[in-house]
Amino acid sequence: MDRAELKLLLQKVKENRINVDEALKCLRHLPYEELDCATVDHHRALRQGFPEVIFGESKTVGQMEQIIMALLGKGNNVLATRVDGEKGAALMHKFPVASYHRESRCLTIEQKPVEAKGRGKIVVISAGTSDMPVAGEAVITARIMGNEVETLFDVGVAGLHRLLARKELLFSASVIIVVAGMEGALPSVVGGLVDKPVIAVPTSVGYGASFGGVAALLGMLNSCAAGVTVVNIDNGFGAAYAASLINRESSSTI
Amino acid sequence: MDRAELKLLLQKVKENRINVDEALKCLRHLPYEELDCATVDHHRALRQGFPEVIFGESKTVGQMEQIIMALLGKGNNVLATRVDGEKGAALMHKFPVASYHRESRCLTIEQKPVEAKGRGKIVVISAGTSDMPVAGEAVITARIMGNEVETLFDVGVAGLHRLLARKELLFSASVIIVVAGMEGALPSVVGGLVDKPVIAVPTSVGYGASFGGVAALLGMLNSCAAGVTVVNIDNGFGAAYAASLINRESSSTI
Amino acid sequence: MDRAELKLLLQKVKENRINVDEALKCLRHLPYEELDCATVDHHRALRQGFPEVIFGESKTVGQMEQIIMALLGKGNNVLATRVDGEKGAALMHKFPVASYHRESRCLTIEQKPVEAKGRGKIVVISAGTSDMPVAGEAVITARIMGNEVETLFDVGVAGLHRLLARKELLFSASVIIVVAGMEGALPSVVGGLVDKPVIAVPTSVGYGASFGGVAALLGMLNSCAAGVTVVNIDNGFGAAYAASLINRESSSTI
Amino acid sequence: MDRAELKLLLQKVKENRINVDEALKCLRHLPYEELDCATVDHHRALRQGFPEVIFGESKTVGQMEQIIMALLGKGNNVLATRVDGEKGAALMHKFPVASYHRESRCLTIEQKPVEAKGRGKIVVISAGTSDMPVAGEAVITARIMGNEVETLFDVGVAGLHRLLARKELLFSASVIIVVAGMEGALPSVVGGLVDKPVIAVPTSVGYGASFGGVAALLGMLNSCAAGVTVVNIDNGFGAAYAASLINRESSSTI
Amino acid sequence: MDRAELKLLLQKVKENRINVDEALKCLRHLPYEELDCATVDHHRALRQGFPEVIFGESKTVGQMEQIIMALLGKGNNVLATRVDGEKGAALMHKFPVASYHRESRCLTIEQKPVEAKGRGKIVVISAGTSDMPVAGEAVITARIMGNEVETLFDVGVAGLHRLLARKELLFSASVIIVVAGMEGALPSVVGGLVDKPVIAVPTSVGYGASFGGVAALLGMLNSCAAGVTVVNIDNGFGAAYAASLINRESSSTI
Amino acid sequence: MDRAELKLLLQKVKENRINVDEALKCLRHLPYEELDCATVDHHRALRQGFPEVIFGESKTVGQMEQIIMALLGKGNNVLATRVDGEKGAALMHKFPVASYHRESRCLTIEQKPVEAKGRGKIVVISAGTSDMPVAGEAVITARIMGNEVETLFDVGVAGLHRLLARKELLFSASVIIVVAGMEGALPSVVGGLVDKPVIAVPTSVGYGASFGGVAALLGMLNSCAAGVTVVNIDNGFGAAYAASLINRESSSTI
Amino acid sequence: MDRAELKLLLQKVKENRINVDEALKCLRHLPYEELDCATVDHHRALRQGFPEVIFGESKTVGQMEQIIMALLGKGNNVLATRVDGEKGAALMHKFPVASYHRESRCLTIEQKPVEAKGRGKIVVISAGTSDMPVAGEAVITARIMGNEVETLFDVGVAGLHRLLARKELLFSASVIIVVAGMEGALPSVVGGLVDKPVIAVPTSVGYGASFGGVAALLGMLNSCAAGVTVVNIDNGFGAAYAASLINRESSSTI
Amino acid sequence: MDRAELKLLLQKVKENRINVDEALKCLRHLPYEELDCATVDHHRALRQGFPEVIFGESKTVGQMEQIIMALLGKGNNVLATRVDGEKGAALMHKFPVASYHRESRCLTIEQKPVEAKGRGKIVVISAGTSDMPVAGEAVITARIMGNEVETLFDVGVAGLHRLLARKELLFSASVIIVVAGMEGALPSVVGGLVDKPVIAVPTSVGYGASFGGVAALLGMLNSCAAGVTVVNIDNGFGAAYAASLINRESSSTI
Repeated sequence: MDRAELKLLLQKVKENRINVDEALKCLRHLPYEELDCATVDHHRALRQGFPEVIFGESKTVGQMEQIIMALLGKGNNVLATRVDGEKGAALMHKFPVASYHRESRCLTIEQKPVEAKGRGKIVVISAGTSDMPVAGEAVITARIMGNEVETLFDVGVAGLHRLLARKELLFSASVIIVVAGMEGALPSVVGGLVDKPVIAVPTSVGYGASFGGVAALLGMLNSCAAGVTVVNIDNGFGAAYAASLINRESSSTI
Repeated sequence: MDRAELKLLLQKVKENRINVDEALKCLRHLPYEELDCATVDHHRALRQGFPEVIFGESKTVGQMEQIIMALLGKGNNVLATRVDGEKGAALMHKFPVASYHRESRCLTIEQKPVEAKGRGKIVVISAGTSDMPVAGEAVITARIMGNEVETLFDVGVAGLHRLLARKELLFSASVIIVVAGMEGALPSVVGGLVDKPVIAVPTSVGYGASFGGVAALLGMLNSCAAGVTVVNIDNGFGAAYAASLINRESSSTI
Repeated sequence: MDRAELKLLLQKVKENRINVDEALKCLRHLPYEELDCATVDHHRALRQGFPEVIFGESKTVGQMEQIIMALLGKGNNVLATRVDGEKGAALMHKFPVASYHRESRCLTIEQKPVEAKGRGKIVVISAGTSDMPVAGEAVITARIMGNEVETLFDVGVAGLHRLLARKELLFSASVIIVVAGMEGALPSVVGGLVDKPVIAVPTSVGYGASFGGVAALLGMLNSCAAGVTVVNIDNGFGAAYAASLINRESSSTI
Repeated sequence: MDRAELKLLLQKVKENRINVDEALKCLRHLPYEELDCATVDHHRALRQGFPEVIFGESKTVGQMEQIIMALLGKGNNVLATRVDGEKGAALMHKFPVASYHRESRCLTIEQKPVEAKGRGKIVVISAGTSDMPVAGEAVITARIMGNEVETLFDVGVAGLHRLLARKELLFSASVIIVVAGMEGALPSVVGGLVDKPVIAVPTSVGYGASFGGVAALLGMLNSCAAGVTVVNIDNGFGAAYAASLINRESSSTI
Repeated sequence: MDRAELKLLLQKVKENRINVDEALKCLRHLPYEELDCATVDHHRALRQGFPEVIFGESKTVGQMEQIIMALLGKGNNVLATRVDGEKGAALMHKFPVASYHRESRCLTIEQKPVEAKGRGKIVVISAGTSDMPVAGEAVITARIMGNEVETLFDVGVAGLHRLLARKELLFSASVIIVVAGMEGALPSVVGGLVDKPVIAVPTSVGYGASFGGVAALLGMLNSCAAGVTVVNIDNGFGAAYAASLINRESSSTI
Repeated sequence: MDRAELKLLLQKVKENRINVDEALKCLRHLPYEELDCATVDHHRALRQGFPEVIFGESKTVGQMEQIIMALLGKGNNVLATRVDGEKGAALMHKFPVASYHRESRCLTIEQKPVEAKGRGKIVVISAGTSDMPVAGEAVITARIMGNEVETLFDVGVAGLHRLLARKELLFSASVIIVVAGMEGALPSVVGGLVDKPVIAVPTSVGYGASFGGVAALLGMLNSCAAGVTVVNIDNGFGAAYAASLINRESSSTI
Repeated sequence: MDRAELKLLLQKVKENRINVDEALKCLRHLPYEELDCATVDHHRALRQGFPEVIFGESKTVGQMEQIIMALLGKGNNVLATRVDGEKGAALMHKFPVASYHRESRCLTIEQKPVEAKGRGKIVVISAGTSDMPVAGEAVITARIMGNEVETLFDVGVAGLHRLLARKELLFSASVIIVVAGMEGALPSVVGGLVDKPVIAVPTSVGYGASFGGVAALLGMLNSCAAGVTVVNIDNGFGAAYAASLINRESSSTI
Repeated sequence: MDRAELKLLLQKVKENRINVDEALKCLRHLPYEELDCATVDHHRALRQGFPEVIFGESKTVGQMEQIIMALLGKGNNVLATRVDGEKGAALMHKFPVASYHRESRCLTIEQKPVEAKGRGKIVVISAGTSDMPVAGEAVITARIMGNEVETLFDVGVAGLHRLLARKELLFSASVIIVVAGMEGALPSVVGGLVDKPVIAVPTSVGYGASFGGVAALLGMLNSCAAGVTVVNIDNGFGAAYAASLINRESSSTI
């Protein structure tokens, strides 16, 4: 039952074409059934100004094409993550207006201008060059969600001076995303320097006992610096999405 | 080398009692050495208005007494976590002004009034009665850090209606902390309902293949709802600390 | 908003005391908010004839007393699991009408007679004497939920003849619960003998590389016999609950 | 020793061609040796009306051809699972009467009509599009085993309204199979809504700390909803086989 | 159906009191049902000359008393493993004829003399003093099972000369049991020196990343020396039982 | 220093061409240094009559050619394991006299006749068709090491009758090798039926929570049947090598 | 702020062009900000005489070309590790002066002669031929870092005599690197023979329960020989780097 | 056969009291058998000046008393680790000359003065107060082994300034031991600051996903700073022993 049907029902009650008990019976399952998913999603989109997001990993080019076309029809911007090079090329062929970010495996389509609407700046830090794809996914996600983003790459804990030299940048952030593999120590160091929310993203970079990012993940979960929270391994998108929620101007919603 | 010594050095340069090269030599190791820990910590306290925190798990009553007395001298409020019943009783005897929260194993001393200074409200949700101690630690931490806190307890995913019935509370939050053990599904459900930052706290509640909270932790890290970040198992304090940083009024510092 | 309020609203619409759009606005959040938890739970109890269940592991005697008294007031039977000896004694003192099953750590109160209402018989099999407490929890749970229960204990795969000798019993079951620790092979053997649903319960019995039941759990999940499903380690209650649902006479509800 | 030989032996006893003690000696090893495998399997097929099943993962096309031809000779229907695209094409070429279900990697041959013989309906629910292949395997298996099957796909816990909107479908089921990857929370939610047996199937969908389905598996084993049992990761076939046993009309067997 | 009943049945056939088809029908379920457990166990005992064994870990003193008395009645020797000091004292009080081996937590009762019946000698080697309880369990088990046993204790791989100095002993063995914790390297070294079956027993000795014996277990499973097989962590009994089977004089059985 | 040199040294002492202290100094490092590796290996080959074995997994065709030619020069038979199809073809081209066993990935060269020299028979049992390659490796290894080998394939625990029907074969064995994947329950069942040494080989067959053979490995280590020892996952060679040592006629060496 | 700027500031103070308080304010952030990364790195290179190192695993040929050219410009030697064959060929084409070590996957460029500057000799020992690539990486790294290196390959614990025969070599070392896969027992044996620092390198060689080197890693961490420290799986470079630091002539630094 | 006996044998040869062949026969098993463990250990003690060490964890007070008395007889100093408070008190009562270090659970007896004989200084750093016991074990071990030791405690990565402020101390070290729990990041930071060998000791401090020190262990193994090697969790003794070997003045032995 959608809004129109509900209105119709109420109209009928008003016009005595249906009595109250019958109407009540119709509404009995309302709590569960009347939800119109599309409407809800529409609300969500309006409210958030966030783009629609497609997780491309396990989808075919055909499936993605279909979804993208549907989304474009709504007038929103589009972000697809985990799009490998081959799929990216195919989609670029289909949607020449799109941008494909090879290293970060993201595809974006900006139908309408993205306006920065956050309270402050999201700073994305990464420990090594190998962490760049994940950091890139975070940057692209945060930008298309309407945040001002600055980056600080290749600042590992084994070369602290590079990080310390950019202290002002850290202090200027509203939220900090720290992307690191191997021992995952960077978020602890950053969290100890600043009093800002730090979102840590472990990466699957490394070998041997790094166990595909588990060592970094555990390091981050056990951070001795308070204020650090963690997302899944390689989940640059998730970190940026959470950072966007944190950075949003106003906290009121309907 | 602290500020006074640095000033003295500059004075000497000014007065030609030491030449520039000699001053330069004195300053060579400055980047690392002149840091005065106490000063920095003082800055941190002033800047944040946050209380000093003691992790009581591996400390003796004697050690905690000593630390608390030192901290009280600075005029700040005090929060000690992981204080078991026996230690709690001993400390209450020593510091009658303190409050001991048995279930949450926290001890607090409020020397000066705590004023709510956040942008909005922190809502703490827990899945089951067994998650209460961890949720309580989060509540106490968030409150003494100057946040308005509301709670919604005992709303597991196997009884969704209790959660859905409190939708308005969720929407009114600035940040939401979700504490859950067992399968750790509650943060996903909450994250799917609202567009607020959700900090998930896995608890060690459960038995068998819950592996002391690992099942809940993995569930939360793999949440299908974007916007969810995670802290360590049973780390109610860490979740509240991060939520406080997120909830702070202004993003400017220094 | 409960049924009465909804009726009142419809009444107002009918009587033109409120117009349709205003009524519509009132109903906007209906899907989530009008749920009355108690009502739903009441329905669940009526529908199922199942007792109320208390997980006693992390509850104090005081908490359990309070809950039991509340439940007794509703007229239902009561089952408390994971009640250790000390708590059991305290509760027996408080509720002399209760039965405490020491080995299985269960406490039951039957206010009204339990009538067998299943389609057939639940057979509970256990591999070794050490698996008895878990098997006992399953038996007690299944019985108080209104099932006819038969048992076959101490029939490990290293002594197959004991199992084979009771083939007719296996064939007479509606559902079979198999409780086993160590290598957890028994459900595979049983599942290969009969064409009945088999619910496997790994137990934490064993030492060394049994890892508190994980070896048995993995063995059961990898069973080469189709028709075997698995519950958590030591979860005799869960197995019996699922078996009861399977064994219920009719599949219609509402 | 098969039935014919046993009959011969008894005949000899009857005719005094062998005395009782000698016959007894012949029968000493009977419990183990006289079993005629084919007979037993024949019985199983007759009794169950279930098709023969081939696990195709580790078999060559040649091996499968041989097995399928043998099975067809018995007059039964055939189900082969884990048949990748290449093998599927080869088998379709050999058996044009077969159906190959690419997404679910299943091949079926229905020599005789499948008649629905269950007590009720099996409902298969999946959380995301990536869970479709496993859900598909469950659907195909359940159908060819003679069950009425309905599906409800793409209803994750982060979008609960889609699930709640189909509450009536859930209530109409005899058994529910819930297929989910990532955090594996969906079975808990479904199990909390209905009082039906729920069989949870974790899938290897996800990345990072999903560990190839282990996170979902643990989530399901630790489900806070009673009545949920679990099968191995990606084991759609096993879930449907167990569901078929549960759904079968009569509980009596030879 | 036991032997007597079977004889009766044959008698009836012989005497034409029952016809062949009816007899056949009676025997239909024979393979499974006629097994008389006691008889089988009796056979096993006669055949093997092995004592009855009780795993004492999860049994009460009362349970063990009952079992021991039953076993003594059969005239066999008795071995109980995993009997802690308190239980041991209680049982010694009850059975003064028993021997309690405190370090190895074994209790033995030799009603009849144990005669060495193996082909050769079992040599039990242990790496450190902390491995002694497990090595002791192996020694006691092997002895009461009728094997000549020699020991070589405290010969770790970090002090190879102690092992090399006893080369002749190694060469004189029929089977070698090697008990080691920590890195579990000793079986590889022994297996490289001799061409005898080596049974490796990992112990739970160690700390940190020894994970209760898992490190030793993995080391042994990955031994670079062929001829090494492994039993469960701390399973001295199992190693000795397998060694006894290997060492038995003759390979013929009923 | 070999025997000749040692003799020369003693001769010099005797003839006063070197004094005692100087001789003593020469002998100081004797315990470690005089070992002549080749001699020892020669002894090993003579003593055992075992073929030389090459682990082919991480070796190139060129490396294997070189080793095989060297080994052939010594007159022994050759066994190479883990030789994939491509390497096998290349080696067959080079050594036409060799036999390549594709399924088991073994290559054998028998220069001199293999004579059965064991005390009895090695029986190799496997649970499923997917376990065949590993079982095959065990069979080939056991045969070329001079053992009589019989096989019993495709007898899983979910179809016990097939196993029970071959009880006499089990009883006729000197050692039994049981190869099984999935839940790894077969060795427990076999070990419960016979009083022979059982060597269990877990295989990496399976999916999901089989974890590449870990589930089977744990099942076997936790076997409830005494007398079962275990080798590494997929290590058919190691099982057969250990079985050969057990099956050897005489226990005397030197 | 670099040295020049700092000097200028002091000059200004001296010349009264800026007063002390203003200078103090300029210096307030000095501890973090004045670091000039390049300078620091320059110092490090001068001080250590070590080559620049590139971890080639996750870098493209293009990226490596760029880095190598930059490094060559500084006049240092270059070491690139984890360079696979294809990348190696491409780089050799670009830098004909380089040496590519195929087995060890290392590429080196020696612009200036490497002079041995250590206190003694680094001995690199490996257990099997499969450990050679990792051992080779250690050898190449240690050599280009200015150490005298000797090797002892293919000396597993299952053939101890080969190791014992080279005792003098072990005793002549300043540091010993031991590379081993499978059970990782070799470092314990070596550590028990000599009183030198032993650095253990687990390799990912092996199969089944070796878990990609974890078994060897655990064996090494639990070594019963004191004086053994461990690096990550396959980390030949890291072992050699640490060994170089240990072997350096003088312990004094700036 | 010890040196005296060997000398006697040579004397006999010289004096023709035994002929060469007979002498040769006596020496035949020399490589393995003549080793006199005590002698070897004596050599080790003389060579190293290291004390005898007792691992007290799994030893009784009685066992330790016996060992200590034997060791004292040799004139060496004694170090016992993992001696809990109760055992410590008992041993202090028996050996009043001993020192018991309660926090570090070490007992030392210095019969002869310890003289510093290393090349330089060992610096022991710890991250938090909870890491103190392990750090203390390292300090005590290093001191009694004749090293100059300095400490730097309570310098976690979340408060970097404390560490940076002591840069000169780090630079003055010959070897650095870094003890840290939680995320184990401190060794990476230290290793990035100095060009000295760093030995990392993970501690079991922490909760939740620290897994008793595994998170710290993995962090250290995956350190992005070269030159870091790792010992087992809580193994302060092992770290100090290895550091002592590194710090020893001369690299020549024998």
